[in-house]
Amino acid sequence: MKLATIRTAGTTAAVRIDGDAAVETGHADLGALLADPNWKQTAAAASGATHAVDSLDYAPVVPNPGKIICVGLNYRNHILEMGRELPQYPTLFAKYPEALIGPYDEVVLPAASDAIDWEAELAVVIGATVRHADKETAAAAIAGYSVLNDVTARDWQYRSPMWLQGKTFEATTPFGPVLVTPDEAEPASGLTLTGAVDGETVQQADTSDLVFDAATLVSYISTILTLKPGDVIATGTPGGVGHARKPQRYLADGQTLTTSVSGIGELRNVCRAEKING
Amino acid sequence: MKLATIRTAGTTAAVRIDGDAAVETGHADLGALLADPNWKQTAAAASGATHAVDSLDYAPVVPNPGKIICVGLNYRNHILEMGRELPQYPTLFAKYPEALIGPYDEVVLPAASDAIDWEAELAVVIGATVRHADKETAAAAIAGYSVLNDVTARDWQYRSPMWLQGKTFEATTPFGPVLVTPDEAEPASGLTLTGAVDGETVQQADTSDLVFDAATLVSYISTILTLKPGDVIATGTPGGVGHARKPQRYLADGQTLTTSVSGIGELRNVCRAEKING
Repeated sequence: MKLATIRTAGTTAAVRIDGDAAVETGHADLGALLADPNWKQTAAAASGATHAVDSLDYAPVVPNPGKIICVGLNYRNHILEMGRELPQYPTLFAKYPEALIGPYDEVVLPAASDAIDWEAELAVVIGATVRHADKETAAAAIAGYSVLNDVTARDWQYRSPMWLQGKTFEATTPFGPVLVTPDEAEPASGLTLTGAVDGETVQQADTSDLVFDAATLVSYISTILTLKPGDVIATGTPGGVGHARKPQRYLADGQTLTTSVSGIGELRNVCRAEKING
Repeated sequence: MKLATIRTAGTTAAVRIDGDAAVETGHADLGALLADPNWKQTAAAASGATHAVDSLDYAPVVPNPGKIICVGLNYRNHILEMGRELPQYPTLFAKYPEALIGPYDEVVLPAASDAIDWEAELAVVIGATVRHADKETAAAAIAGYSVLNDVTARDWQYRSPMWLQGKTFEATTPFGPVLVTPDEAEPASGLTLTGAVDGETVQQADTSDLVFDAATLVSYISTILTLKPGDVIATGTPGGVGHARKPQRYLADGQTLTTSVSGIGELRNVCRAEKING
């Protein structure tokens, strides 16, 4: 099953995507749908207003997650090629919902930064409330998978020891277009994650190469605090970011960033330099 | 004016504290009150149900902030005594709302950690929507000040390069008891921040010693993203944390942690070892 959040006249709506048709489920967005403990049955049975898929205006697939938890270096090949040891624990940091944009919205390149970089990632969306979950319970709490680009202001990321301020600039993080349930897309079986700038592939990896896979991350994080429906885990990016290139490369006004995971979908975002009013 | 969120039969309510009386404003919590652009007038004029202050059950002063933004090393004397240079930029990291508890609730000492430490802090609560704010606009967007203890699992904080996972364990962070508006409490003029364990003072500092004061932090963060009513900034802790002591000291089951800022109020929290069900 594929689910999304679309923008309709002045508001948003959760939809189930059936081929060429998007059927409203009756919820304000996918987060509201997932808060229903029977969301799978509810979504499968929904028969609300129907839209043509090629006419949709997609919002971030979960527009306002309670938590967005990001994972640092998590691709085995990339860690090993950098000459580092595989980490014992995941590196976690946060992003606030103000950073999110829809899958085809413009990425705002902040006026305050000269070094905006890409980070193509597989995203995990939580579909149940879990705490102290073992790996099996954790796996069952995954609503599905989506695509996210953890676009990062490298100059701000490294201003202080903590990365947060480079990771959460407003309207920088495309997320969507759809959530695909695990029965239709299983990252541990190997999906291809790809990032491209103006059509040139700059990142490519296999999601089975994650050091900490989705269920392991959910279990680990649930030791710390309660994960709730609609929470998002961005699972980390592989090699190929612009900052690590020689010479370094950053996103520029007018460039198109595409981010895809095979079997899930593709983000396509034009980058626009921020214009500050007043 | 002093404002708070109290627990009433099965729900919560925002109140104005008038001496011995707490008067309900008609909002579900302080966050909902602050979302009213005229919250100051609304709160001052409120005349709802009244409770005796000594009978109140306080919730976290803002129970579910959209964002909790924490600041790293920010007390001048402490930085200088550690032989470090004053930082050019604030260090920012996040905490999720699941970490918050009321001002007299029990701090849960997570079973997963052997090193739970205290961090007494002044908290800033946002009262207006601001982006790209200069310092004057930023100052005007501050609803008021409160008290928070950024209780930290040191072992988890240092498991990875990012501190987040040690900073956001469930039910570890007391916050309240009240918000005091800036006309009644001005940290830049020098308020005394104190942390104590079982009555022994372990941290003490003057809030005028902050490297990045409240308005500077609001302005800085508003460059990154939009701050909204109810958002919280925890401004950092001074010296005296248990982890930096020789020998190191951590919180133990049954100990009482008190945290106060003169002119604002005091948190008083008994520490209890987590019991994991099932």
